[in-house]
Amino acid sequence: MSDNRITFLIQCEDSKGIIAKVTTFFYDEGFNILTCQQFTDNIEDAYFMRVSLDAKDLVMSRTELEERFAVIAAPLKLDWKVYYSVDKTNVAILASKTSHCLFDLLEKHSEGKLNCNIPLIISNHDTVKYVADQFKIPFYHLPVTSENWEAQQREIKRLLQDHQVDLVVMARFMRILSSEFINSFKEKIINIHHAFLPAFQGANPYKRAYERGVKMIGATAHYATDDLDEGPIIEQDVERVSHASSPAGLTQIGSEIERKVLSKAVKFHLDHRIIVTDNRTIVFPETEG
Amino acid sequence: MSDNRITFLIQCEDSKGIIAKVTTFFYDEGFNILTCQQFTDNIEDAYFMRVSLDAKDLVMSRTELEERFAVIAAPLKLDWKVYYSVDKTNVAILASKTSHCLFDLLEKHSEGKLNCNIPLIISNHDTVKYVADQFKIPFYHLPVTSENWEAQQREIKRLLQDHQVDLVVMARFMRILSSEFINSFKEKIINIHHAFLPAFQGANPYKRAYERGVKMIGATAHYATDDLDEGPIIEQDVERVSHASSPAGLTQIGSEIERKVLSKAVKFHLDHRIIVTDNRTIVFPETEG
Amino acid sequence: MSDNRITFLIQCEDSKGIIAKVTTFFYDEGFNILTCQQFTDNIEDAYFMRVSLDAKDLVMSRTELEERFAVIAAPLKLDWKVYYSVDKTNVAILASKTSHCLFDLLEKHSEGKLNCNIPLIISNHDTVKYVADQFKIPFYHLPVTSENWEAQQREIKRLLQDHQVDLVVMARFMRILSSEFINSFKEKIINIHHAFLPAFQGANPYKRAYERGVKMIGATAHYATDDLDEGPIIEQDVERVSHASSPAGLTQIGSEIERKVLSKAVKFHLDHRIIVTDNRTIVFPETEG
Amino acid sequence: MSDNRITFLIQCEDSKGIIAKVTTFFYDEGFNILTCQQFTDNIEDAYFMRVSLDAKDLVMSRTELEERFAVIAAPLKLDWKVYYSVDKTNVAILASKTSHCLFDLLEKHSEGKLNCNIPLIISNHDTVKYVADQFKIPFYHLPVTSENWEAQQREIKRLLQDHQVDLVVMARFMRILSSEFINSFKEKIINIHHAFLPAFQGANPYKRAYERGVKMIGATAHYATDDLDEGPIIEQDVERVSHASSPAGLTQIGSEIERKVLSKAVKFHLDHRIIVTDNRTIVFPETEG
Repeated sequence: MSDNRITFLIQCEDSKGIIAKVTTFFYDEGFNILTCQQFTDNIEDAYFMRVSLDAKDLVMSRTELEERFAVIAAPLKLDWKVYYSVDKTNVAILASKTSHCLFDLLEKHSEGKLNCNIPLIISNHDTVKYVADQFKIPFYHLPVTSENWEAQQREIKRLLQDHQVDLVVMARFMRILSSEFINSFKEKIINIHHAFLPAFQGANPYKRAYERGVKMIGATAHYATDDLDEGPIIEQDVERVSHASSPAGLTQIGSEIERKVLSKAVKFHLDHRIIVTDNRTIVFPETEG
Repeated sequence: MSDNRITFLIQCEDSKGIIAKVTTFFYDEGFNILTCQQFTDNIEDAYFMRVSLDAKDLVMSRTELEERFAVIAAPLKLDWKVYYSVDKTNVAILASKTSHCLFDLLEKHSEGKLNCNIPLIISNHDTVKYVADQFKIPFYHLPVTSENWEAQQREIKRLLQDHQVDLVVMARFMRILSSEFINSFKEKIINIHHAFLPAFQGANPYKRAYERGVKMIGATAHYATDDLDEGPIIEQDVERVSHASSPAGLTQIGSEIERKVLSKAVKFHLDHRIIVTDNRTIVFPETEG
Repeated sequence: MSDNRITFLIQCEDSKGIIAKVTTFFYDEGFNILTCQQFTDNIEDAYFMRVSLDAKDLVMSRTELEERFAVIAAPLKLDWKVYYSVDKTNVAILASKTSHCLFDLLEKHSEGKLNCNIPLIISNHDTVKYVADQFKIPFYHLPVTSENWEAQQREIKRLLQDHQVDLVVMARFMRILSSEFINSFKEKIINIHHAFLPAFQGANPYKRAYERGVKMIGATAHYATDDLDEGPIIEQDVERVSHASSPAGLTQIGSEIERKVLSKAVKFHLDHRIIVTDNRTIVFPETEG
Repeated sequence: MSDNRITFLIQCEDSKGIIAKVTTFFYDEGFNILTCQQFTDNIEDAYFMRVSLDAKDLVMSRTELEERFAVIAAPLKLDWKVYYSVDKTNVAILASKTSHCLFDLLEKHSEGKLNCNIPLIISNHDTVKYVADQFKIPFYHLPVTSENWEAQQREIKRLLQDHQVDLVVMARFMRILSSEFINSFKEKIINIHHAFLPAFQGANPYKRAYERGVKMIGATAHYATDDLDEGPIIEQDVERVSHASSPAGLTQIGSEIERKVLSKAVKFHLDHRIIVTDNRTIVFPETEG
């Protein structure tokens, strides 16, 4: 199956005939529709769609395809984006001291499982430099204090711009990014929170999970927003625990969930499977095996 | 959301334009497409689709709708079936001595969760008659011996025909139906096997799971075919177990999985979410919450 | 394996030799120790133990056994309770309008899976009377208004005393019991909250889960305390959900988790597997299969 | 909590007083029993026990401890082994072309999560040499043909002996070891089979899982025995799949299960949590968090 894809993500107010008109447009333009997924939100009367096409079938320029699509999209009032899989997303990873999420992302990337470039890793410590070195990825150590954090964020931004980064992955990065920073990367910063949101927002979730005596712990990947740990959730998972786990033990068990969830969420994003609506996400699952 | 649905299940050889043409047809006929799910099997070059429409939008007779659909279906060589949700499926349950799967089905049915009628329960024992009585469903006790089994199967068939049964659910029914019986209800007999197929086909799966020392056990709901426990799988699930479970313990844990899996599979069937292909099933999941 | 058990639940400050002394005591008294589980909480320096003995080996009166045990328990400062499985717990179920948790408990009880008597069901509605009738259990309909709630709680208490109830199960009972009521049944009221605590405490958890856009929902069984939904958690479980589920859909999916979790928690309690410590529970799992 | 442990693994025919006598012995010798887990197999009348002690409390030589323990063990006919956690197990990893299991083990090892040394990696291909290099572990490329396989196995054995290897982990190593090789490392070779045993033993399990249309796939870690994929199972896990996954897709999903299961099984072994009995394993879970 061709890996060269064109993916349309579409949302609009629900009405009759959207799928008929959109699929007919692609058919008329000579495309083979590889996957077509839709979801009608009956509560909000909203419609969401993901269509992936075989890029082999593109016989015009991108601009022309997009202009033609805009013609049928306008009367339907479609809010749409198109992605060409040959355009690999540039991903920057922010890390602090823990290595497991970083390791998992770099390993999956090196095995060809994440369709992106990883031009740089930024950290406020040098603890995980050895991981970046193992995978031969440039590592920028930017130590942070409360005094220099604002300046360092500007430095991070500069590095991101220099490398044309289009997705920032906070792999257990422990500093809180400013509203200004976050809003300049709206829906382009994925964070992993080491708890099953909305439980245990903020600091020390494993300790608090231990104190609450929960029987399962989890991790949550979400887009970062102004409000700490309150952004739209992309993916979550849990593991069973018992009274036998201390906070340290929960941290160990949790690390396995964190890495799995973060990598899954990053892959959903890189494969253009996510639409954000109303602080929630529509995630169109993989259907091609 | 309207419960009055028209559901089309479609399969064919894959080709360009199927979704465009099918959805355009429904749009042109004035239908609101409530859900549209498709799957392209790239290995077999096969295409599968499930479309559900709001029956309120049906302004012609069923025959007319079906004739018109046949017109666009023919050139696409669609193999299709249509279901009207007001036509409730008549379900017969076959049981032997264990009650938990039967209980779960009857309870879900009485809570309105299974869109069907249950006109009768047939059993080769009278052990579970009290369950049928609790739910006020006619119970037919047909004791079976190796000598009378052929005759009893004819009697079962007669009862099924009298009640216009369109789905037979074997809820831990322990006799093996003849090929002849099974073939007269092709893809209309759902069986629950108390193991995670294809492991432990046949008798005493819990005992054999114990002996193998597996760390998870499961249950499998499948359409019954000529070959025991080899029919197309509809749904499966597992639970973690340990060395601590004896065969009796596994039986207890397994009963919870069996009931959950069987009820799920029956609901998939009643909601017309299943297409059988090549001894496998395409199951279109619920997407309306 | 004998069902006739004597179960000791023990807790104390940790020190050397507890397990040696306790197990030696039972051995010296002629008991076969069927199961012995222990847990040392290194953070709190606390020790917890569950020992189950074959009651066949009891050759003295209960009083004598307990007096003798007290002799070795005192120097170790053991805080202990003993249970005799022939003494079946009397369980009262409080229900409101939803039937699934009630159904599951009554079904498991009728299948002999819950070692208790269920002498009565109390409800503030008559909606689920039919379930009580099916299982032939006395049903008390006590309609509740804000004016009469205090009086009705006294009536409930009276009914519980009359029936010598030792465990109250709130099976989606929607009224909030007073502190006074709860404290008179300390660690003897199990409630099922239809969310994965500590997320979504209080009302409408499914609606709030939907709004938060979580990717998993759960249910939590806990001992009721003064603080709503904050009591020690006994058992929890989750199911994966997606954007496709509306609050109504989440309610359906959630109902299956609720019944499973509540029945599990009730069984843990009836089998004397739970020690409450510090608003958390130590749950000694089944190890006999 | 001290990491310096002494662990006893004990099995015998069940009889009264074992736990009393064993725990009393350790208490009398001045040990703090950190964990004590037991399991009575009522079907086989067998008893299994795992005791871990704080090595700080060892005030005699190992030989003396073991001789003294032998004295109480003899009349109880205990079959026992003792392990000192300061003696790190030397682990050799055998790999072929797939890297994910290898990666996971090396990463967990480098994060201090696996209590062992990994002195060498052996492979019949050079495909994964880069992973060994990243983690700076000696890599031995031994190309295999049907003609040289016997000789190469002797070479592998020589390497294992030179490095005093005490555990061999087959991390998707695709050659079949001879009976002779396996029997010289009885219960010291852990293999990961990429299916949920006993389903799909042998070659191409993902393809066969696809053809069978299973709704879950899994992986199984087990001790290698003479009979391919039939050795005692240590750990298993599954993931839900659907019709949408081709064999290639199942391979991807399966790789995540394989790495998780293999690492878990290796950790159980390294932490001396496993007793093999009757082609099954007793696995004493972690209870210290």
